[in-house]
Amino acid sequence: MHLPSSTSHHPVGDVSATMPPVCDFTVFGGTGDLALRKLLPALYHRDLEGHLPEDTRIIGVSRSEIDDEGYRAEVRAALERFVEPALLEPEAVERLLGRLHHLCLDADTAEGWHLLHGLLKDRPREDDAVRVFYLAVAPRLFGPTCERLAEIGVVNERARVVMEKPIGHDLGSAREVNDAVGSVFAEHQVFRIDHYLGKESVQNLLVTRFANTFLEPLWNSQWVDHVQITVSETVGVGSRGGYYDHAGALRDMVQNHLLQLLCLVAMEPPTYVGRENVRDEKLKVLQALKPLTPADVDRDTVRGQYVAGLVEGERAASYADDLGADRSDTETFVALKAEVQNWRWAGVPFYLRTGKRMDRRVSEIVVVFKEPPHAMFPGAEGGASANRLHICVQPDEGMRLHLTAKEPGPGGIRLRPVSLDLSYATTFDQRSPEAYERLLMDVVRGNPTLFMRRDEVEAAWSWVAPILDRWEESPEPPRRYPAGTPGPFAAAALLERDGRSWQETDQ
Amino acid sequence: MHLPSSTSHHPVGDVSATMPPVCDFTVFGGTGDLALRKLLPALYHRDLEGHLPEDTRIIGVSRSEIDDEGYRAEVRAALERFVEPALLEPEAVERLLGRLHHLCLDADTAEGWHLLHGLLKDRPREDDAVRVFYLAVAPRLFGPTCERLAEIGVVNERARVVMEKPIGHDLGSAREVNDAVGSVFAEHQVFRIDHYLGKESVQNLLVTRFANTFLEPLWNSQWVDHVQITVSETVGVGSRGGYYDHAGALRDMVQNHLLQLLCLVAMEPPTYVGRENVRDEKLKVLQALKPLTPADVDRDTVRGQYVAGLVEGERAASYADDLGADRSDTETFVALKAEVQNWRWAGVPFYLRTGKRMDRRVSEIVVVFKEPPHAMFPGAEGGASANRLHICVQPDEGMRLHLTAKEPGPGGIRLRPVSLDLSYATTFDQRSPEAYERLLMDVVRGNPTLFMRRDEVEAAWSWVAPILDRWEESPEPPRRYPAGTPGPFAAAALLERDGRSWQETDQ
Repeated sequence: MHLPSSTSHHPVGDVSATMPPVCDFTVFGGTGDLALRKLLPALYHRDLEGHLPEDTRIIGVSRSEIDDEGYRAEVRAALERFVEPALLEPEAVERLLGRLHHLCLDADTAEGWHLLHGLLKDRPREDDAVRVFYLAVAPRLFGPTCERLAEIGVVNERARVVMEKPIGHDLGSAREVNDAVGSVFAEHQVFRIDHYLGKESVQNLLVTRFANTFLEPLWNSQWVDHVQITVSETVGVGSRGGYYDHAGALRDMVQNHLLQLLCLVAMEPPTYVGRENVRDEKLKVLQALKPLTPADVDRDTVRGQYVAGLVEGERAASYADDLGADRSDTETFVALKAEVQNWRWAGVPFYLRTGKRMDRRVSEIVVVFKEPPHAMFPGAEGGASANRLHICVQPDEGMRLHLTAKEPGPGGIRLRPVSLDLSYATTFDQRSPEAYERLLMDVVRGNPTLFMRRDEVEAAWSWVAPILDRWEESPEPPRRYPAGTPGPFAAAALLERDGRSWQETDQ
Repeated sequence: MHLPSSTSHHPVGDVSATMPPVCDFTVFGGTGDLALRKLLPALYHRDLEGHLPEDTRIIGVSRSEIDDEGYRAEVRAALERFVEPALLEPEAVERLLGRLHHLCLDADTAEGWHLLHGLLKDRPREDDAVRVFYLAVAPRLFGPTCERLAEIGVVNERARVVMEKPIGHDLGSAREVNDAVGSVFAEHQVFRIDHYLGKESVQNLLVTRFANTFLEPLWNSQWVDHVQITVSETVGVGSRGGYYDHAGALRDMVQNHLLQLLCLVAMEPPTYVGRENVRDEKLKVLQALKPLTPADVDRDTVRGQYVAGLVEGERAASYADDLGADRSDTETFVALKAEVQNWRWAGVPFYLRTGKRMDRRVSEIVVVFKEPPHAMFPGAEGGASANRLHICVQPDEGMRLHLTAKEPGPGGIRLRPVSLDLSYATTFDQRSPEAYERLLMDVVRGNPTLFMRRDEVEAAWSWVAPILDRWEESPEPPRRYPAGTPGPFAAAALLERDGRSWQETDQ
């Protein structure tokens, strides 16, 4: 394959540069769980590997009344807790802590914001530095925070804003958030993060599809029987009950993570993997999703809610008990059948499911190929099973191609399913970086490929809207499933009635 | 995939039966190297696993003046030498030895042949027993031995004859041998053995192609760039110099083994894998091979001969020294480019090579797929290398699919070649049987699928004939290559000039 040695002729940005530009990395919610558990450890790892230029600063913003030293102590404790001990190098820890500042600010008032202005202006050639504003705060603060940033005059051409889900509660509220943020930042400055897209195995799906010859000829309705996307968790709703009960699994997981994975599987090859091309192609998939009528929703979607059960040998409470409520009709499980109505995929079901308190923690994409058109080994013992490509996103990133082989032995031909395996852990000696490491560096570099564009988010909301509507008007509550199981029976029936079944384990 | 539970409706023979019929297994050349090293150990293994019915007898025939006991002693010594010690079970050894008889016969005289007649008739329901006559003798004896068998009246409907290569020295002499044998045995009773076809990985190629969906769509000139078939040995000509110098690598290896492997790669899917179907398809491939003109031979074939060199750290003599001759123009190495002129393969080169005293011992088929039509990861570091399927026949049977993956890490996309592996040794816990075990049982069962039919042998001779003719008239001797190297430079140039190269190692 010819690979251009320079990117300058292609609209792909500086994705191949080894050292990102100098940056002031401002984290709103700097003392919160996401910042301490994910963002700062991710920045530490990049710093450890020499990927943060010397003048890079990290500014934690929160309502905590602590000074820089107090913040450094909190972050030091977080690194000691969340970074693998073997990778905690004292020199690198001190280097990262030396980059830290803390500002006590409240988005609801104008007080103190001049301090942020002062800090950001206080560096040589201030306009050369990239300014990242990471909104690790409640979604209601997305708009107000952006407005404050505009007021104090720190939103320049090199400023970028990062938002976590949820972006809105439905199409209307998502538009409001996007409008508010968009009144301050241009779309190319807005980075809507979906950490699934930062997973190595998810990106490897793009490479596997497009840097190889062997998949693309099979990757269509002629050879693919159906696709399964599963994101199952063993945890319950935990302390997020307040938010979760208002959202439910469809909004929390399907509208973003699962539809994004579906897009990466189904999208047409972009001209290049870079900048807007991938997002253009993902958008086309979302737009090609067959709209669901109320009857479609009744037939092709299943919602569930966990009741008490056993998870990994431990008794787990019901969702209502986790909430501390008498009852709730919020779904903690969704299974549905979608169809991408285009030339490549029409007629191929995409089965999606996600749930909390399931029997296993796994995120995987399974592409099930059609069976051979004709059985050529009559009398062969042993079953031939369908060819499948498993793309395992977590816990163990990897890829497996399941095929039928001949079992060794004389006499008749015996068929046996085997798998060709690529495990990231055993194939690559280097540590597989956390999704956030890549995504944060992509923000600093200004590479939006793996982030959701406004039109994608809104197209996804448009597609889920009829499901939300129908569920709301339906008298039928979510089907109960015991914690620690693969969800309600109806989720199995959804495939059974098509003569298919969920690939329960990657054996 | 639907697999019929019974074979009775299909023309595939009794390939799925677990127990072969009772048999009298007569080995001409019963004290020779092939019998002691391969055939008797193979029969021992089948017996050990309970695949020889109780009344099965093994009759060694040779000019040695030994009795049954003397033969048993020879075979016992051979088993102790050639069977893995852990698999030498005293009870099974005694059982096999108990089946043995020896007859002292000479095909050049009629003397003593009545003894064979007597022995074969000396069993209850004699006509129910399969009679296998394995000709592990010099090819000049194939015809005379068959005539003797006819004379003594032991060639019945259940008699089969097995021949090893070489079958003839060219098309004319092959026809003579086939005529002589064919005057006694019907074609369905003649088993021309090519032990490469008994290899698990070679048969698995059929299963991988035809019991799976994922290969067949790629298996044509649209997606395959070229095919390489390599059978390289580190040994020299050894004690076979007398035969070998008269034959050369083209006759000894290409006309049979390499063309047979080519046929299995290139053949169209038969209706069923069984009986005549596979052989019909292989014949079609041989008939589709583009005939070579003298100019084609000059351009597309390379012959070589080893001179002294280092093989695995040891000094190795030249071919002439191995022969004990002043010089010879016999080739010990062949590389050539072939083309299968049909709709599936036209334009796809099949590069074949084989040699003695090469740098490594390996038999493998490499199917090299075309590169992706378009580089979608501009600026990506690391090379993408072409997708390849390696089918390793020996020493380690297995299959590897080489593809390009994303190297883990944040920042730009780095491409890296990886492989999805299927190793027979690690995937299947059972011992992989020797090729001869399967092939001998196939003979007893009357399953000819993996044996060369007369028309195949003759079609292969027809195709190599212009090469033999041109080489004979050419003033240019074989190119010399030092022992322990990958052959003459010209073999590399054969591919280089097409912008390709030999896949030297399966990394």
